[in-house]
Amino acid sequence: MLGKFKRILIGRPMKSAELEAEKLGRLKALAILSSDALSSVAYGTEQILLVLMVAGFAALWYSVPISIAVLGLLVILIISYRQTIFAYPAGGGAYIVAKDNIGKAPSLIAGGSLLVDYILTVAVSSSAGTDAITSAFPVLHDHRVLIALVMIVFLTIMNLRGVTESASVLAIPIYLFVIAIFVLIITGVIRYFTGGIEAAAPQFDSTVSNVSLFLLLKAFSSGCSALTGVEAVSNAIPNFRKPAEKNAAATLLMMGIILGAMFIGITLLAYWYGIHPSATETVISQIARMTFGHGVLYYVIQGVTALILFLAANTAYSAFPLLAFMLAKDKYMPHMFMVRGDRLGFSNGIIILSLLSALLVIVFKGDTENLIPLYAVGVFIPFTLSQLGMMIRWIRLKPSNWGLKLTINTVGMLTTLSITLIFIFTKFSQVWVIFLFLPLVVYIFYKIYTHYENTAEQLRIDIKVDKPEVKGNTIIIPVAGITRVVMNTISYAKTLSPNVVAVYVGFDDEAIHKMEQKWEEWNPGVRLIVLKSRYRSILGPLRRFIDTVEWKTSATDHITVLIPQFVTHHWWETILHNQTSLLMRAYLINYKDVVVATVPYHLNK
Amino acid sequence: MLGKFKRILIGRPMKSAELEAEKLGRLKALAILSSDALSSVAYGTEQILLVLMVAGFAALWYSVPISIAVLGLLVILIISYRQTIFAYPAGGGAYIVAKDNIGKAPSLIAGGSLLVDYILTVAVSSSAGTDAITSAFPVLHDHRVLIALVMIVFLTIMNLRGVTESASVLAIPIYLFVIAIFVLIITGVIRYFTGGIEAAAPQFDSTVSNVSLFLLLKAFSSGCSALTGVEAVSNAIPNFRKPAEKNAAATLLMMGIILGAMFIGITLLAYWYGIHPSATETVISQIARMTFGHGVLYYVIQGVTALILFLAANTAYSAFPLLAFMLAKDKYMPHMFMVRGDRLGFSNGIIILSLLSALLVIVFKGDTENLIPLYAVGVFIPFTLSQLGMMIRWIRLKPSNWGLKLTINTVGMLTTLSITLIFIFTKFSQVWVIFLFLPLVVYIFYKIYTHYENTAEQLRIDIKVDKPEVKGNTIIIPVAGITRVVMNTISYAKTLSPNVVAVYVGFDDEAIHKMEQKWEEWNPGVRLIVLKSRYRSILGPLRRFIDTVEWKTSATDHITVLIPQFVTHHWWETILHNQTSLLMRAYLINYKDVVVATVPYHLNK
Repeated sequence: MLGKFKRILIGRPMKSAELEAEKLGRLKALAILSSDALSSVAYGTEQILLVLMVAGFAALWYSVPISIAVLGLLVILIISYRQTIFAYPAGGGAYIVAKDNIGKAPSLIAGGSLLVDYILTVAVSSSAGTDAITSAFPVLHDHRVLIALVMIVFLTIMNLRGVTESASVLAIPIYLFVIAIFVLIITGVIRYFTGGIEAAAPQFDSTVSNVSLFLLLKAFSSGCSALTGVEAVSNAIPNFRKPAEKNAAATLLMMGIILGAMFIGITLLAYWYGIHPSATETVISQIARMTFGHGVLYYVIQGVTALILFLAANTAYSAFPLLAFMLAKDKYMPHMFMVRGDRLGFSNGIIILSLLSALLVIVFKGDTENLIPLYAVGVFIPFTLSQLGMMIRWIRLKPSNWGLKLTINTVGMLTTLSITLIFIFTKFSQVWVIFLFLPLVVYIFYKIYTHYENTAEQLRIDIKVDKPEVKGNTIIIPVAGITRVVMNTISYAKTLSPNVVAVYVGFDDEAIHKMEQKWEEWNPGVRLIVLKSRYRSILGPLRRFIDTVEWKTSATDHITVLIPQFVTHHWWETILHNQTSLLMRAYLINYKDVVVATVPYHLNK
Repeated sequence: MLGKFKRILIGRPMKSAELEAEKLGRLKALAILSSDALSSVAYGTEQILLVLMVAGFAALWYSVPISIAVLGLLVILIISYRQTIFAYPAGGGAYIVAKDNIGKAPSLIAGGSLLVDYILTVAVSSSAGTDAITSAFPVLHDHRVLIALVMIVFLTIMNLRGVTESASVLAIPIYLFVIAIFVLIITGVIRYFTGGIEAAAPQFDSTVSNVSLFLLLKAFSSGCSALTGVEAVSNAIPNFRKPAEKNAAATLLMMGIILGAMFIGITLLAYWYGIHPSATETVISQIARMTFGHGVLYYVIQGVTALILFLAANTAYSAFPLLAFMLAKDKYMPHMFMVRGDRLGFSNGIIILSLLSALLVIVFKGDTENLIPLYAVGVFIPFTLSQLGMMIRWIRLKPSNWGLKLTINTVGMLTTLSITLIFIFTKFSQVWVIFLFLPLVVYIFYKIYTHYENTAEQLRIDIKVDKPEVKGNTIIIPVAGITRVVMNTISYAKTLSPNVVAVYVGFDDEAIHKMEQKWEEWNPGVRLIVLKSRYRSILGPLRRFIDTVEWKTSATDHITVLIPQFVTHHWWETILHNQTSLLMRAYLINYKDVVVATVPYHLNK
């Protein structure tokens, strides 16, 4: 039943050999990996304008140079990350690059902040997508949390089904979004130059008295939020079809060009149209309305924008499980993140990501906007570490042209470091929590690592020296009466060892006497030992008996406890029987150095 | 930790031999077993007056003859049940008497309706107690369900601590209640005869035109609700100190006299004072107010009345676990109801009773008053069956004076049968559900019985003929690598049988090849078989392998699967390891005829 339901939801299990066919071509990769980055267009310009507006309408012209600065940063990041992709064709996320070149601790800081970040991405994006939906249909406003959770469940199922299939479903809205925004920008530019728009843009290059450096930096850092998501491609190289690094680099470049063009286009239109940021209407919506009027095209723009915000969450679904896999391989996260599910995705990573982000949505009741700066700073920390790692790599390896390569990554590192510092400087009240959280995550990574190392050390043997030894065997059978199950178990025990003893725990003298008599009469060839339990506990006396046997024989013998157990025909019938054997087994396995065997006897009705 | 908490809550475990000391003397028994019956005084008279009021104030005089009829019924019940106590000194509840004399089906009807009834008692009484509290403190009204649940939890803990201790705690309010009501009645009678009360009692013996037989019967049956709880003593004889039957009979008589005196006293005062039943003030409250004024004594009466209503639930806590024990002994209920807990009470019965009644309180949101008629009819069905059983017993055994004894029980049977019919006739809309529920309960009893019978039949052996046989033994060890745990397991396996084979499930050719090579180098003296899993499942290939081995050797050999397992130092560390072995064990035990043994290796850090 459950299995069938899973088949319908997730699809048939796939062979390991089918993995290659699941991999991504350039266009599908663009669809899967770029939604996070591209969706920034929907709010990037607006974030800058909102900060500048504090200094008045005249200050809005600063948005153009600031956007150009962000664009410059984008170019730096793209060039830097291209280098990373070719240097690390097996996947060059910040974690790998930092581990390879700087050291353990920085790599764990990078990995930890990215993991946290992906969880924030899903929470923030699904909430933002929900906001877009409830803006269109206000009647749904009371069900925001439910809608966000449904979105997360939908994404979970798509991703459990497998990478390619989810790409096919998700590609269409992303292409629609790109096309729609370009149509908007081109139409807008044409209408502006043909004089179809009457607007009062603020004077360019005017000096505004109350614009401080702090304000400009804050506006710039807000604009940098638009760059989150750029790292997705370099993390996901192993998901690309061969030649993976070339396809990845091409995808990254395509994404950069599209993102840059859309971002600067929207910023220019906003400036030319003289748009005020407003609490009730987004900048994109104002531009679209002024360009197209309240027609079909306007609603198309709004619809695909809402959709892309929601789909941005999907990027995290490709990145989180892969990063968790890499951390698990290095023993910093539980092994379970290394297991591929029926459909070849890392199911455990997908499920954990969904659960944690759903938890955030529930705790914040769908109002996750305040988490955005946190999540931007969580991206720029690994950006910086990754660039620093590349710098060290070039100095260490000195390949051809290493001077140029070093220069590129040094510029990249200094830029991202500055932005991280600007974030901390201008938005400390919103990002301080990361300085508590990140050390905790790194501490847990180390704890897990230590556990695995200790375990491995204790389990390791020298195959030249350590060989199995043969010892004797003493067998203990707890019996509750003389039944077919007990007979079965004794038959079995006799095949194993001549040292077999049955143990009966009785609560009163009468029961004990009766059992002894019946056992003598039966005479199964095994000695019966009776124990009296004054507290009606079976486990207590049995435990003390095993202690005694252990003390006497453990030097020469293995001790085996054989538990006779009948298995009922229907599972629900087990509630009709005492579960002493389960308790007994759990106790013995966990606290005693004895082998516990269950000898089943299957009832057939 | 958990154990310590349990010790504080429930107390130290007790020896079986301490059982006798836990038993009840007459006075404590009265406290424990009479609260249900005595609490009826708080509403019995009122129930009669409420029905009569439909025909107008003049009709209220009928309450006196009706109460005398109820009193007559009480005398009949007491005399009948005295006979039962002496005939069944080991406990003579309706279930036992019906089983012994009539047959299986009637006894199960009696047992089933009593079990359901005890659950209703707890739900109704804890809700009624809560009502009394919230009447005094209206601010608590929104927390009714919570308060009722807290009461149930309190009763559960008291009863898990043990019979005597809970009696000590609960005895005081019951004695207070009895004393308070008698003080009220005596003062009230004195004041009435000394002319201290000005009241207009309705004319006695006047003919009221619109009083129908139906109305009188309905009023009578309402009054009979006051008799629920009388059977508690005869069910609980095994809880009495020796001589149990004499003590029980004396307790029953005491209870009958107190109940009868209080009931008729309250009814007479209500009539003499000309009291109208009212929605806002109970009859007891009106009498107390007219007798004492709004002074301290009035509040004492109200307080102890509230308390006794709540304590009535405690009667069910003595009766339900004992009846469940008897049904379980006869294989109609799960064995778990036969186990005595640490403090010698039947803990499982206590806990199940609490859970089910808490569920009723939650489902009905604390408004359980409508369940009262249901619960009255649930008592009179077993009353009738019990009397019928006694009649058959006298006819069958013909002891001295059997004619008199038969007459007593015949009168009892006819009376209780009539009342049952009157209940069904006058309150069908409230009691019909029992005709759905009772057959279902009896059906479940039969299903459980059939399961235990089938199980016993399959497990039974003829100790003269069936003896253990010796067969060979083939051992399969699933291995994931070469570690100390595996070495340990192989050492152990070699002590058991020469036929040992290790099985490795690999996901790709490289891993398989590497494992084979390393195994050869190690050469532990055991053959390694490698299986390739294309779907990354370990269980699947292993299952097919075991099937093959079973097919080849099961005629001559037992098959044992030895699972190597390391046990982590801290329990929470287990989440860092894949739980394949647990899944494997559950699958094999439930579906395969193989012995599954876990060979533990304890990590020490």
